[in-house]
Amino acid sequence: MRDIQSEPDLRQIDIDQAGIRNIRYPITVKDRVNGSQRTVASINMSVNLPRDFKGTHMSRFVEVLDKHKENVHIDTVKDILSDIRTVLNAKRSQIELNFTYFMQKAAPVSKLKALMDYNCTYSGTLSEVEGEPLLDSVMTVRVPVLSLCPCSKEISAYGAHNQRGIITISARTNRLVWIEELVDYAERSASSPVYPLLKREDEKYVTERSYDKPVFAEDMVRNATMLLDADNRILWFEAAAENFESIHNHNAWAMISRTKGDISVCTPFRQS
Amino acid sequence: MRDIQSEPDLRQIDIDQAGIRNIRYPITVKDRVNGSQRTVASINMSVNLPRDFKGTHMSRFVEVLDKHKENVHIDTVKDILSDIRTVLNAKRSQIELNFTYFMQKAAPVSKLKALMDYNCTYSGTLSEVEGEPLLDSVMTVRVPVLSLCPCSKEISAYGAHNQRGIITISARTNRLVWIEELVDYAERSASSPVYPLLKREDEKYVTERSYDKPVFAEDMVRNATMLLDADNRILWFEAAAENFESIHNHNAWAMISRTKGDISVCTPFRQS
Amino acid sequence: MRDIQSEPDLRQIDIDQAGIRNIRYPITVKDRVNGSQRTVASINMSVNLPRDFKGTHMSRFVEVLDKHKENVHIDTVKDILSDIRTVLNAKRSQIELNFTYFMQKAAPVSKLKALMDYNCTYSGTLSEVEGEPLLDSVMTVRVPVLSLCPCSKEISAYGAHNQRGIITISARTNRLVWIEELVDYAERSASSPVYPLLKREDEKYVTERSYDKPVFAEDMVRNATMLLDADNRILWFEAAAENFESIHNHNAWAMISRTKGDISVCTPFRQS
Amino acid sequence: MRDIQSEPDLRQIDIDQAGIRNIRYPITVKDRVNGSQRTVASINMSVNLPRDFKGTHMSRFVEVLDKHKENVHIDTVKDILSDIRTVLNAKRSQIELNFTYFMQKAAPVSKLKALMDYNCTYSGTLSEVEGEPLLDSVMTVRVPVLSLCPCSKEISAYGAHNQRGIITISARTNRLVWIEELVDYAERSASSPVYPLLKREDEKYVTERSYDKPVFAEDMVRNATMLLDADNRILWFEAAAENFESIHNHNAWAMISRTKGDISVCTPFRQS
Repeated sequence: MRDIQSEPDLRQIDIDQAGIRNIRYPITVKDRVNGSQRTVASINMSVNLPRDFKGTHMSRFVEVLDKHKENVHIDTVKDILSDIRTVLNAKRSQIELNFTYFMQKAAPVSKLKALMDYNCTYSGTLSEVEGEPLLDSVMTVRVPVLSLCPCSKEISAYGAHNQRGIITISARTNRLVWIEELVDYAERSASSPVYPLLKREDEKYVTERSYDKPVFAEDMVRNATMLLDADNRILWFEAAAENFESIHNHNAWAMISRTKGDISVCTPFRQS
Repeated sequence: MRDIQSEPDLRQIDIDQAGIRNIRYPITVKDRVNGSQRTVASINMSVNLPRDFKGTHMSRFVEVLDKHKENVHIDTVKDILSDIRTVLNAKRSQIELNFTYFMQKAAPVSKLKALMDYNCTYSGTLSEVEGEPLLDSVMTVRVPVLSLCPCSKEISAYGAHNQRGIITISARTNRLVWIEELVDYAERSASSPVYPLLKREDEKYVTERSYDKPVFAEDMVRNATMLLDADNRILWFEAAAENFESIHNHNAWAMISRTKGDISVCTPFRQS
Repeated sequence: MRDIQSEPDLRQIDIDQAGIRNIRYPITVKDRVNGSQRTVASINMSVNLPRDFKGTHMSRFVEVLDKHKENVHIDTVKDILSDIRTVLNAKRSQIELNFTYFMQKAAPVSKLKALMDYNCTYSGTLSEVEGEPLLDSVMTVRVPVLSLCPCSKEISAYGAHNQRGIITISARTNRLVWIEELVDYAERSASSPVYPLLKREDEKYVTERSYDKPVFAEDMVRNATMLLDADNRILWFEAAAENFESIHNHNAWAMISRTKGDISVCTPFRQS
Repeated sequence: MRDIQSEPDLRQIDIDQAGIRNIRYPITVKDRVNGSQRTVASINMSVNLPRDFKGTHMSRFVEVLDKHKENVHIDTVKDILSDIRTVLNAKRSQIELNFTYFMQKAAPVSKLKALMDYNCTYSGTLSEVEGEPLLDSVMTVRVPVLSLCPCSKEISAYGAHNQRGIITISARTNRLVWIEELVDYAERSASSPVYPLLKREDEKYVTERSYDKPVFAEDMVRNATMLLDADNRILWFEAAAENFESIHNHNAWAMISRTKGDISVCTPFRQS
């Protein structure tokens, strides 16, 4: 059979990224407490495609994914990206893993425990810099929190509007930073964490604690920035906070992005 | 050319509904204040298909929709459904219009106005009952509200967790009930309406008012039920309330459905 | 502390369902080949609430879920529903589990294997009928398939438009019917299954096979109906097919629902 | 009342963007054929916030939006962004308008017309460069198309798998480029446009035409690149193609981004 994809292309145009998107696969993620946990990911994979070839061989992405299936793991991503580069004969390979991560969380007073879910994204790019393979990776955690409005508290005789919000932290690091650590930075930036299971004594505690620590979306990204700035393992970060305002049908939002270290080798390519 | 769709089908199986889904079109909706408003709808349309035919002619749905395009209107839905029955030679035709509806809303103290958006669905079925065409229609409004937790208020020394929620009301009526009226029933069932535009004096008012009127999701559907029960134009309703809990990453929810009048001619068919 | 939820309510209105929605938890599902598989579910849980009580105790749903967490399993759902009835002192309890299910699927010629994902929903209601607990459960599978248009094939000199579609089958059964069996019914109703991994010889096979077996959305639900009708374990089903038409920006859709056995004890309550 | 937002902030951290997200408003968009069209937009608005202030005054975004409500228009975006800068006393203001755009489209043979919908995003940033206000804007169109696989056609005795795809084109320009022109570039890059309304003679035409013009996702972005490269009004673009593969449950994807002119003044800030 003819291999159309391998044939030359006359337009002479390099393609930045070609690959597959939105394939779902079970993966294993490093877990600070339990070593690892099984979850389900929606995955994007791509390579650069030089001007000389008409198409990439999309099925090979799935073969690499399936080969590593007992071990599609943030630790083994470099191997996966390396395998992709080899089987597709590419200079640059990319992967994006979107998954739910679970952490056991204890209520603040009763100490009752249940599982809390966090949407996370790990994206990695393996490229060649001066002949050497180089991995650029970004971990993103999306952390639901409680935010209580400082303005509403200040101007009202009693009460204060509050709401669920999401703090999103993305980080490039020079050493392992646990998902648990980024979640902790986000939760400490808010009026209160949210919990999967609260009894009445816990609900009282969370209500009063959040009233004592009012924050705007702007405060949450500034608080996160202070924590992320102080962590020397982090070379670059973006912190965003979005509040699902309880008094509006639209959201309040703030964002800070900072480069702290040398990320000159990082890929400027779009991950999603 | 052969007309495959019109050919006989040997399996002898009636099809409950066959049609098109998720076609987007500009429509006009009745507006209590301004007479009418233009908006954008995602539309589903279908007919029953007798066992004798292999397929329905899907393009005719679009022709009917486009013919009425300056007037795809809740008042003209019966004409559209009647046209569909005719061109597709069907006993029963159905339409579902999902659209954003805007209302100008004044802030409670400053009286400053801006537009508030509501997700609405109108679904209609035209069938034949004893030789006569009969329209069964359901209007659904989804109303964002503020809910403040009675338990949190009661047990806490100060403050109370609150959040955005959605009250969804569906109704079958024997006379016109305005979208504005269903929205009003929903908003009166909550701790407070939400607003597009609030200045500080408004925010103080909303904060204090909601603290004075705490409601569970359960309270909101009971409050709505009392209002819907008292409205004699309403033959059947379903009221649901979902709170995007500010202390959890999951939602609290309650639902009540009631038949008040004779809806024996109403269609049991699935609308979505 | 006062227990507001347990206090009497003066409105004297029964609530059909009160509970939590969209809580995510890891669950285990029965797997025909491997015994069981771990996946992630989005879960809704509810109970009826009599007119005498102001609210339900939402945290108890999470406690029951967490108690069964190593074994949140379609086989143990009856125990979970029974526990919910007990801790919430309710007559009727309901659960809905939405999850991704994986099956290893071999390509038709090369026999290369990879994992294929299916969106599934299991919903169960435990109520009391003449003093006895009775479980009503519905399994829903959503199966991506390839459909090739019979009209386009017939009228064109060459080629035929085809597209990805989704066949959704819901079933009430009197004995275990495997997810794998419902998936099989759906795939046999289409022009071809879709696959996670296809090499060129497989792609040739799928292309030619689907051209040899053209189906409308209407054909797919009729084909599924014949298979579901012939399975005596199935008491009730709904089969729907939606094609993401490659020649339009809207979808073609058909649906058949059938009651075959005695489902008089089944709940009419809304699951989603 | 105290104005908390205007108070000084001790953390001394500049915020890149602070504002509101996901507010829905009716807007008017320039229309090449009819002058203008009314549609519904989901809107994000933001400003930079200097380190000296605790928060931004979110309600002012809504006031500006409502002030321009009869004329929230791509032509007037500069005025809106300028007003935002003024009322919020900011150096930089940003807006993102996500909306459905309708074009009347004639079937290729019957010439029957109906409306086709396109998801579009306009994003604009007004900043100050050497004391002068400067607008950087990006228009994005998402165009559904038909793609037919060259490999499947080549290796199969008959037929070829094809599917709906989406070509997304974003462009920075130095003069007006109509939405209609970007849509045209996308449609010419595919196997065929898709249509809202096709009769049998049209379906035959589209089927045969797409069979005669097979394209990979890679071909579509290369074809688009050639057209976008040749248009001198375009300074920068990104073209992506995603195919909802009819033989898989995942998508094929390719992307090319190119800077052609001087975009040194363009904002690097994230728009979504």
